[in-house]
Parts: sequence; structure tokens; C-alpha cells
Amino acid sequence: MRADLICIGNELLTGLIENSNAGFLARRLWSAGIEVRESVVVADDMSAIREAFNRALKNSNVIIFTGGLGPTDDDLTREAVASALNCSMDLNCDWLNRIELFFNQRGMKMPENNRKQAMVIAGAELLENKAGTAPGSLIRQKGQLIIMLPGPPNELVPMFDGLVLPAVKEFNKDNLNRLKTLKCCGIGESTLENKIKSLGKWDLPPLSYVARGYEVHLQLKGRGSPEEAAQEIEKAETRLKNLLGDHIYGSDDDTLAGKVAELLTYKKLTLSLGESCTGGLLSSMITDVAGSSIFYQGGINAYSGALKSKCLGVDIKLMEQEGQVSEAVAKAMAKGARYNFNTDLAVGITGIAGPDGGTAGKPVGLVYIALATAQKCICQKLNLGGGRLAVKERTAQVALDMIRKELISAG
Amino acid sequence: MRADLICIGNELLTGLIENSNAGFLARRLWSAGIEVRESVVVADDMSAIREAFNRALKNSNVIIFTGGLGPTDDDLTREAVASALNCSMDLNCDWLNRIELFFNQRGMKMPENNRKQAMVIAGAELLENKAGTAPGSLIRQKGQLIIMLPGPPNELVPMFDGLVLPAVKEFNKDNLNRLKTLKCCGIGESTLENKIKSLGKWDLPPLSYVARGYEVHLQLKGRGSPEEAAQEIEKAETRLKNLLGDHIYGSDDDTLAGKVAELLTYKKLTLSLGESCTGGLLSSMITDVAGSSIFYQGGINAYSGALKSKCLGVDIKLMEQEGQVSEAVAKAMAKGARYNFNTDLAVGITGIAGPDGGTAGKPVGLVYIALATAQKCICQKLNLGGGRLAVKERTAQVALDMIRKELISAG
Repeated sequence: MRADLICIGNELLTGLIENSNAGFLARRLWSAGIEVRESVVVADDMSAIREAFNRALKNSNVIIFTGGLGPTDDDLTREAVASALNCSMDLNCDWLNRIELFFNQRGMKMPENNRKQAMVIAGAELLENKAGTAPGSLIRQKGQLIIMLPGPPNELVPMFDGLVLPAVKEFNKDNLNRLKTLKCCGIGESTLENKIKSLGKWDLPPLSYVARGYEVHLQLKGRGSPEEAAQEIEKAETRLKNLLGDHIYGSDDDTLAGKVAELLTYKKLTLSLGESCTGGLLSSMITDVAGSSIFYQGGINAYSGALKSKCLGVDIKLMEQEGQVSEAVAKAMAKGARYNFNTDLAVGITGIAGPDGGTAGKPVGLVYIALATAQKCICQKLNLGGGRLAVKERTAQVALDMIRKELISAG
Repeated sequence: MRADLICIGNELLTGLIENSNAGFLARRLWSAGIEVRESVVVADDMSAIREAFNRALKNSNVIIFTGGLGPTDDDLTREAVASALNCSMDLNCDWLNRIELFFNQRGMKMPENNRKQAMVIAGAELLENKAGTAPGSLIRQKGQLIIMLPGPPNELVPMFDGLVLPAVKEFNKDNLNRLKTLKCCGIGESTLENKIKSLGKWDLPPLSYVARGYEVHLQLKGRGSPEEAAQEIEKAETRLKNLLGDHIYGSDDDTLAGKVAELLTYKKLTLSLGESCTGGLLSSMITDVAGSSIFYQGGINAYSGALKSKCLGVDIKLMEQEGQVSEAVAKAMAKGARYNFNTDLAVGITGIAGPDGGTAGKPVGLVYIALATAQKCICQKLNLGGGRLAVKERTAQVALDMIRKELISAG
């Protein structure tokens, strides 16, 4: 089963607004066993919307519009869909009352142009909007679902999860377990592909590789009847886990930081950080996880040598001898953080993010990551490229994976 | 002049990867006077790519592909474009050597399948990739520019800025000053709109408002001949700057963190941070700016009270009396950072990012941001919504703006 997404709005085409709706809807549809065929952004323009809609009608079972349901003249989704389907629009008096109430509750009179938000395509189900005045719509016709959602994510997300997803799952009830994503790290895309090809005769389901920085994601697609597809996915997952072992850190909605948080919480261990070249990024990724205050004590973003010495107890002489970017200093930072903040684990990171500051002996992209525990202090050296932000991000990901591996191997 | 964006990859259609490239390219093209007509995401599928390409060829002057340039069998952009244009592909031996070197430097042998990344469409200019093995391509034909870029943003961004943008600007040299974005902060979208409407008779060029968290961006579109358009933009910019004053922090590619870095560097002042609820995000945003080591000493991500006391010198009794989330503690964090790390300015942040940890008196989203200088210590209280990540992000933005305002007002 396939879906087309049609996102409408000039603000998306100028890049002022990131189109987070497309990714959100795609993930939700994937988890409901539906693949997106095409996802398009078009302007607030009648003929552009109609053209995209006609394409979608020819190709997909589920068609989702976002945006263009507002009260202004350039909100045209309703009109474009009604005209393409050759349907009339009727005033929904209940919803008109709701809109008037919405304004009254805010001490305002409803502007006349909001009236058009109560116009509903004949035969459409109205989808309630708890956060705004634009209702969504759902149209069932000839084996297709056509859905219109408001653009603002705070209106779209609850409307989709509460009203649309159940309808979509019902519509696709035979194919719910057909799709799965396995998330790998610490292994390159080509190496991974060769390893999987080495399994010999290709009896895995269709599989695609997605490299993102330190991670590679494997997307599996089960074939045949619903039962066969679910079985094929399960079998493939087992084989891939045997083959790839700890390179697979999770599936579907898991993240590396989330996995580390889960392991630390489960094992009741605490963590602190001493970051130099990542400048707080690793700490921010960890504190993005809700509940991280349970295991995370805090960290030092020690850009200057003075801070490394003062807060992490790194010996000034050591920094002079070895240089701030060195294995010895990374280890001293990790040990210092662990000792000072009294945690079970600590990470120390030092490196040259660039673009300046590199030398022949220590080029931009040279990074040391140390991990200290009660038993030991290990260190990994990296030579990274891709610019300042890429160096920061890759370093943070490798550090997360070092923590993960330590927690797994410690049993 | 118009552009079509064609982003290729199953990983985008399944929502595994946010399509940040489309927004990035749209913003850059806007700053070069080019509007995006349609932005589409299609699968790693030959006929889907060709269909989108043919549509773009009919409609736009500039066509940009992202993704599908990798080494695996499902990387098909090169092949699809070559076949649609009826061009052959040739092995570029220089680039093949580069790929081999790329692997050798990492102590690996080039896998055979990477060889296809050295295949270049006849007549195309090869665009060097400093961060990966997939080169980009630029094809000029019959008044159109066709550009192929690798999908990973850390490869795409430097390639676009370094090699493509100059070519696009040259291609569109008569219309460079037709579009402009002014970036405002510290003022709501409605207030801003009312202020601008209060200018009276509407003699500004077409203008759209886009709210992004703490910022509102104003997009201006000049009309008429290239000279008239440039003049209209310039005149509008002057009027808006008079009206909005310091609410405008920059234009087009400026960022708030970049602006703060510029001011600190120019004034030769130093900065340190004490972050609790933002957990290192503000530090990471500041260290994203190249050259930040000149003014940034470092920061403490003090999630625990122990760290607030140990590294920022916050009185334990004060935390007990006032609570860790309080104006007094935020100020003590800022003053402590400033004193301990010997900087001209310091920021202290404490708050409840949620989802847990809120109480009736101190709900989730309550945040205090303090800024200490030699002369004073000011504090701002916020009540934020939108979830953990939104609270972190909005707080970091407000903190950056507090630093910016201090630096501007200090003259």
C-alpha cells in the first residue's frame, strides 16, 4: 500500500519553515505498513495543487495534504480538492459555531474570512482540531483515502495520531507488520553491505541502506501475504542480529542517545562529561532524553586550558608537554570528571574541530575520546573530515557508542 | 528565475532522515534571487527520478538533485540523469584515484562498488567532495543549470556554498538583489505585523512573515526590472530598520549565535556559561561558530546540585532555600561562572525542561536566565511550552539575545 504526501505553502518553498510534517507522516505511515511513494511541496497555487493531486490519485491509495486550510485568500486546499473531485462544498453549521466560540473565548469577534474554514467537501468526514480553527477532512472514495490536515505541527500531530492513524491502520489492517528498520553503528555502509552479501544466496527480504554519519540504517520490507511478510521480517531480523551482533543498537524509533540512557538507567549507573571540541553537543544530546537527570550529573565544556585544569583537574604541565589535543589529556579529562563528579562512568573529549587550529602533526579533525570507569580508562583516536559541525557530531556519536559498548560488555 | 528541487532517497520517504537539504537549498537560492517552484522527494527508483526530472526540465531554470550518488546498487541519480539527457558516462580516473586514496588513508582497500562513484556524465563539471567519495556534478545546457549533490548535509553544504552558489549567482547575476530576508527576534509575529501595518499606506514590496521559535523572519520580494527591484528592497530595508530597531538582528544567512560571536570578537570580550536545563545546548550553539575559541572560555552543564556548587560556587544553602530553579540560583550560577572562569560576561540558566519535575508553584517550562557583567547581574524569567526540546531551544535563543542586547547597549 502506498501514500502520496502533498505539503502546501510558500513558506516551505522558501525554506523559512522546515517541513517537519513530511517526515512525521512518513514515519507514522511506515509504522502502519504504508510506504510513501512521493512527497511534494507545492506553492499556494490552485493549478500546482491540482496537478500534484491528480498525480497522486493515479499512483497511491492514501493521499495526505498538509496546509492551505487557513482563512486567508491564499489558502486553497479545500477548493482545489473539491474542484478536482468535482464535489460541492457545504457550510458545516456546527463547526461554524465552534469557530465563533473559539474567537469569543479569546474576547474577539470571528473575522468574516474564517467562515470559509467551516466549508466542508460533500461526503467528507470532518476531523476535529483542538488547537486551531481549521478542521481536517477525510474522504473515502473508490478504494482511496484522501486526508486534509492543517499545516501547524501542534494542530496536525494530535489530529493525525488521534483521528487519522486509527483510520489508516484499519484501512491497511492486513499489512501492519510488513516494514521494519534496524539501526546499526560503528560500521561503514560498504562494509555492512559486503558482510550482508557474504551471507551468500540472497534470501533476505528487499533491504535498503541509509548512511547517516556514524550510523547505517537497514530498512526491511516483507513480501507475500501479511503473515508471510511478518514472518520474513522476523526471520531476517534474527539472521541480521546474528551476523552483525552489537553493531545493531536498536530498531525503528530508537536513538543512540536514547539507548545509552536506557542502559545507564537500567544498570543504575551515573555519567559525567568533560568536552572540549564538541563544546557541549554530547551533553545536549544526552539531556535531550527525558529522564536523563536520573543518571547524568553534568559536564564541563572546557574550551580553555584553564577550565580543563580548574574543573577537571588536568595537570597544566601535562597539557604543556603533550598538548591539549592528546591521548593523555583526553584520559586526564575523563578521569578528572569521574573523580570530581563522583560518577561511575565519565567521558573526556579533546580535538580540533577546525577550520583553524590544525598543524601538520595535529590536523583539523584529530580527536581523542577517552572513557573512564572504576576499572580502566580507554581511548579512541579519530581522524575526521567534513567541517566543524560534522566533526562535532561524529565525535559525539562515537562517544555515545563507546559508552554503549562498555555498558553492554560489562554485562 | 525558478528552481526545482529533487531529493532522492527511500530514507527520506520513510522519514528516517529529515530532509534538511530542501530547506537549506531553498534558503540559499532565495538569497541568490531564485524561488523554488516545486520541491519533491522520490524513491531510489529509476522511473520515479526520470519522471520528476522531466517535470522539472519543463518548468524551471535551475534543477538540483540531492542524494542517490552513493556506491550501492540503489544509488541511481547519475544513471537516471544520463539516460534522460541521452548522455554517456565516462570513468574519471583522477576521481577514482581520489576515492582509492580516501580509503587508503583510513587503512582500508576501496570496495569495488565505489568505482561507480567515479563515473561522470559526459560534459558535466565535476564538483569536488572534501568530506566523502561521491563527487557532485554541474551540467549547463540550453539555458538550464542541472546540479547533482550528495545527500549527507556535511558533504552537500560545503559543496554547495563553495562550488555551486557562485555558479548559480553568476547564472542569475541580473536578479541577485530581488529577494531578501530580514531576521527579527524578541517580538511576536502579530505585534510585528501590526507595527508594520501602522506604517500606514502600504508601499512596501510583497512581504511575508514566518515565525520560527523566538525569531520572526520577514521575506521581501522586489518588483520590476532588476534595478527597480534592488532599489525597492533597499528602501524597504531602511524603513523596516527604522521601525524595528534592534529587533532586527541580521539578514539572510545570519544567525543569532553568529551575531553574538561577531560582537564578542569585535569587542574583545570573553564569555563563560553555567547551564542547567539547557544541558549544554547553548554552549554547543556557540561552539558551532568557527573561531568561537577566541572569546569562549567554556561552560558548566550543571545538571546536579553538586556540580552547581563545586564548579560554579553556588551556595548549597541558597539552593535549599530558593530551590535549584530560582532567580537567586540563576544569578549565582552566572556570577560564579564569571568569577571562576575570569570572563567579561557569563550566563546562568536554570529551569524545568520536563516532561517530569514540575510542581504547582514551579511548572514545567519555568526558566530563569541570568547575565552577569562587571557592572550588574540581570535575570529574565520565562514560562515556556511545547515540550522538552522546545524549552531547551527557546531558552538558548533568549539567552543569546540577552547577550546580544547587552553587547549592543554597552556601545
